Amino acid sequence: MTERLILHEHAASGNCYKVRLTAAIVGAHLERREYNIMEGETRTPAFLWEVNPNGRIPVLQVGERFIPESNAACYFIADGSNLIPTDPFDHADMLHWMFWEQYNHEPNVATLRFWKDFVGHENLTEAQKHQIPGKREAGDAALKLMNKHLEARDWFVASHLTLADICLFPYTHVASDAGFEMHLYPRVGGWLERFKGQPHYVPINA
Amino acid sequence: MTERLILHEHAASGNCYKVRLTAAIVGAHLERREYNIMEGETRTPAFLWEVNPNGRIPVLQVGERFIPESNAACYFIADGSNLIPTDPFDHADMLHWMFWEQYNHEPNVATLRFWKDFVGHENLTEAQKHQIPGKREAGDAALKLMNKHLEARDWFVASHLTLADICLFPYTHVASDAGFEMHLYPRVGGWLERFKGQPHYVPINA
Repeated sequence: MTERLILHEHAASGNCYKVRLTAAIVGAHLERREYNIMEGETRTPAFLWEVNPNGRIPVLQVGERFIPESNAACYFIADGSNLIPTDPFDHADMLHWMFWEQYNHEPNVATLRFWKDFVGHENLTEAQKHQIPGKREAGDAALKLMNKHLEARDWFVASHLTLADICLFPYTHVASDAGFEMHLYPRVGGWLERFKGQPHYVPINA
Repeated sequence: MTERLILHEHAASGNCYKVRLTAAIVGAHLERREYNIMEGETRTPAFLWEVNPNGRIPVLQVGERFIPESNAACYFIADGSNLIPTDPFDHADMLHWMFWEQYNHEPNVATLRFWKDFVGHENLTEAQKHQIPGKREAGDAALKLMNKHLEARDWFVASHLTLADICLFPYTHVASDAGFEMHLYPRVGGWLERFKGQPHYVPINA
């Protein structure tokens, strides 16, 4: 990889942390540009024009081109490494968990954390408050499914660390901040500890 | 691909249609198993045990193994075909649109269609009814972003049909069923027509 890699991010976001974790584990160098999402810095005309018309971070800049969506950015950085299985079934199974993370896990576990710790309950709209019980239930269902899957295995796909684990780790390891009772999911707890013991692991606040 | 491919599906679901479209375009043979999702046929103990612990369709069965998540199933079928760019940037850009589809498009456009045409407004919970205005706004934002992206290009990624187009087509082409005013998005309309003109295209009810 010869082009310069710049991560446009808000460092406390789990989706941004994923990209830094991937880079650390494969040994890629990332420059970092911080945006204050609470001040609307990713919704300015300049950001929408130059970086991401969807107004969201993270975005991985590769030379003069841009890749939005955290899991796609992680894939670009990990492409060709042993984080991505070469067997077609294992590769699709890795993508299955990455899509599942964005559909079933992040909108529940991450959103409840964001609403509680970043926005503040008193600032939520009525429509958001109505969604809390459903997101709590769906978040618990996601954690339960992960716990079940890990009953007979150490990693989500194949028999080693893959991008699926990296994409699932960030919001899971702070799920207790969102009020999820992690003692209910002991296999998930074991997997989190295994993950933290990997070479080149970096914490979210590094 | 020598293993038998079986699609566990509900045929009217856009997520299931994606998998059939991919198979048709690459010339793969799919057996089909239909489930009535309104009758809970994907939440039975047997389905959860054998097919998908997440209780959702589509699931692609490959021999005796299973791939949930529509976009992962499409990738498995298209793997090695020209629907998947080999250039690493284009490949990640394709994944970007596929993740964007599941995060920004499907939960808004597809969910409003499902609530209106499958569940029925009178059967929605209060929490669901509170989400309608937000999903309408987010769905329009998604269609507007697609329209803008297509101003200068015929296909979403690279310069030819890729899996990104296939994953975006199903719910976009029935967005008017969910009440979206498609005349506001003429570039999207042109892309839908180009897509329907591709060799081996199959309609959703085929």
